[in-house]
Amino acid sequence: MADLELTDLHASLTDRALNSMNFLNEISHHYPDAISLAAGRPTEEFFALEDLHRYLDLFAEHLRDRGYDEPAVRRTIFQYGRTKGIIHDLVARNLAVDEDIHVDPEAIVVTVGCQEAMVLTLRALRSTPQDVLLAISPTYVGITGAARLVDLPVVPVGEDDDLEAVLKAVRADGLRPRACYVMPDFANPSGLSMDVASRKHLLEIAATEEILLIEDNPYGLFPATGHERLPTLKALDTERRVVYLGSFAKTGLPGARVGYVVADQTVAGGGLFADELSKLKSMLTVNTAPVAQAVIGGKLLANDFSLVAANRRERERYAANLRAITDGLRTRFPDGGISWTVPAGGFFVVVTVPFPVDDALLEKSAHEYGVLWTPMSHFYDTDVPVHALRLSCSAVTPAQLEAGLDRLAALLTDELVLSAGR
Amino acid sequence: MADLELTDLHASLTDRALNSMNFLNEISHHYPDAISLAAGRPTEEFFALEDLHRYLDLFAEHLRDRGYDEPAVRRTIFQYGRTKGIIHDLVARNLAVDEDIHVDPEAIVVTVGCQEAMVLTLRALRSTPQDVLLAISPTYVGITGAARLVDLPVVPVGEDDDLEAVLKAVRADGLRPRACYVMPDFANPSGLSMDVASRKHLLEIAATEEILLIEDNPYGLFPATGHERLPTLKALDTERRVVYLGSFAKTGLPGARVGYVVADQTVAGGGLFADELSKLKSMLTVNTAPVAQAVIGGKLLANDFSLVAANRRERERYAANLRAITDGLRTRFPDGGISWTVPAGGFFVVVTVPFPVDDALLEKSAHEYGVLWTPMSHFYDTDVPVHALRLSCSAVTPAQLEAGLDRLAALLTDELVLSAGR
Repeated sequence: MADLELTDLHASLTDRALNSMNFLNEISHHYPDAISLAAGRPTEEFFALEDLHRYLDLFAEHLRDRGYDEPAVRRTIFQYGRTKGIIHDLVARNLAVDEDIHVDPEAIVVTVGCQEAMVLTLRALRSTPQDVLLAISPTYVGITGAARLVDLPVVPVGEDDDLEAVLKAVRADGLRPRACYVMPDFANPSGLSMDVASRKHLLEIAATEEILLIEDNPYGLFPATGHERLPTLKALDTERRVVYLGSFAKTGLPGARVGYVVADQTVAGGGLFADELSKLKSMLTVNTAPVAQAVIGGKLLANDFSLVAANRRERERYAANLRAITDGLRTRFPDGGISWTVPAGGFFVVVTVPFPVDDALLEKSAHEYGVLWTPMSHFYDTDVPVHALRLSCSAVTPAQLEAGLDRLAALLTDELVLSAGR
Repeated sequence: MADLELTDLHASLTDRALNSMNFLNEISHHYPDAISLAAGRPTEEFFALEDLHRYLDLFAEHLRDRGYDEPAVRRTIFQYGRTKGIIHDLVARNLAVDEDIHVDPEAIVVTVGCQEAMVLTLRALRSTPQDVLLAISPTYVGITGAARLVDLPVVPVGEDDDLEAVLKAVRADGLRPRACYVMPDFANPSGLSMDVASRKHLLEIAATEEILLIEDNPYGLFPATGHERLPTLKALDTERRVVYLGSFAKTGLPGARVGYVVADQTVAGGGLFADELSKLKSMLTVNTAPVAQAVIGGKLLANDFSLVAANRRERERYAANLRAITDGLRTRFPDGGISWTVPAGGFFVVVTVPFPVDDALLEKSAHEYGVLWTPMSHFYDTDVPVHALRLSCSAVTPAQLEAGLDRLAALLTDELVLSAGR
């Protein structure tokens, strides 16, 4: 007899969101030789172990420049630290330099990756069983998972839905929408971006409807060739309607697991929203590893606070790969039969096909064709079949990418024949 | 007008547990020149920046020894990693060497400090509003805080209470006790330890009553002079009744924020409990910073997996300081008037006085006497006045400790006079 029953554990553990992530991890583990057009992790080509040592030394030197004596330098890096972080001032300078976002460093909480920032924000906002989160659908599975952990239902807002109408309907059901989660730049998974007018309109709705916008921006530094970066919602936010989630996983170093949240909202009788998130963090992870923060701090210092500058090579690689995907699909499917998005940047292309794309097809693709991708069904919170898959350009070399597209084309061509015969 | 109302945020934010931690942090921040007999952080005397570089290099070398090529070494340290961790096998060897605990490395989840291990465990176990956690009282505020984050009530079990009677009463109230949290070795805050017979009896109760024991063991490596280390509950656990929480904050390096949970329980239809915790972790922090794990891994490798060996100097320091506290109190209060515990190890001595010890007295102590300590009231979940305070021996030099005791004695002497006159 087993020691524990799954049905006695928290409901999230049997939820599709958590098991979806698990399934995708397992399949890539199970087929290590398959070419991965699934992984959203950054390119490994420019990693160098020496950088770790250099960044740690640079951060220590920075503390000395600020007047810390040696015991204080060691204490800052080795000891438990400030709950809101020890590189909040460096992050604030990075936001000013790269994003034209100007915030009080005290409004920043440095987190264990962006994922902890999501959990903290949703945990704070989920106060009653009537509370719900709105999220542009298809939605990043990480925010759905975070919402599950705090028992917060997620109401999907379709890309063509009228947000105000959705809010009205949700409220008519007796529910209280607390925030809307949105990735305005090169979204995961859709690859789509909002234009500046839509961003301003969204901010107006947030103000009128008195909801927060949770802006997630992991890919904003990576526009496609011929495209410009657009101002983030937070840069346009004059009424503190936006909680801004930042990640150094794609632009800093994934293995440091450092992200942050900008929460400059005021709280009646409680200072800044960041201070409330900090209280939660003190009971979730105590603080973000100072050693890891020192590495990211060092990288910021090494690049005069500009991750745009630090990621010039990565940006070129992703832009070239993104173009290679869309060009490569055009070459391999000159007569149509499938269609795909041509994103303005980021890591992801969505391919739409005339048949349902499910986990069984992914398993077949991995096993028989040696290529991995992500079924778009994982980004919808329903059982309705989805006829699309997501390709990622970030974790492959140009040669791997071409080989991966050949394998994918073989799979899709076979499936097109099969589905035509059905 | 404020952007947000505190009453609209999660209830934990107005809870005493979260605000208690905040208050204690703020007071030490506000009086940086006060001598801290409050902080439970490890001594900083043996920190060396070179160790960081050495540990990182040792871990990289260990990966090469295991056959990793250079890209694989870099990927392991720089990239997103396995959710359950990349040093689980090294942790398992450490447990075998130092604790005589023998577990499958797959049953270990490496976490962002022990705090995340608590949150994961309680999140998994809290399934219905009837679920409650039992905890030996007075209780470490971190477990209370973790329970608040997942809306899990904590039922205190007094040190002299009969656990079986408490379980019966809780069940009679229609509640479902999921686990009992216990720190059998040199507990925080009481400093008390359980003898081996009590440990075995507790394991029997857990088996009969079908509850889990959550064993937290941050201080077990630090017995007082003349005392032996006792087997942990987990070492005595033959029926997988114990979820074991481990921390490298006191024995490894606090700034790495690496802890772990051993969860070898089987789950019907779901593998190991560790795998369920891993699913939750994938949505809480994704994984523990590989850079930070590499630092701890390197320290384990540098010491042949023995943290007992690695902490010889620290152990001597804590044992000497602990003795200096109890000896110093005897010297300063030869005629009684107050009493104190003489713990068998760990960091903490509890001083009992004939007047209530509250935050106002701590503020007075910091401001007028220049010494910090912790009111024991912070470790009880009630408003009943508590006539005791906690002293910590870990973060002061012998000279600071003596000066701190002088200041404390001055405060307590003045208060004894005041309370006698009342």
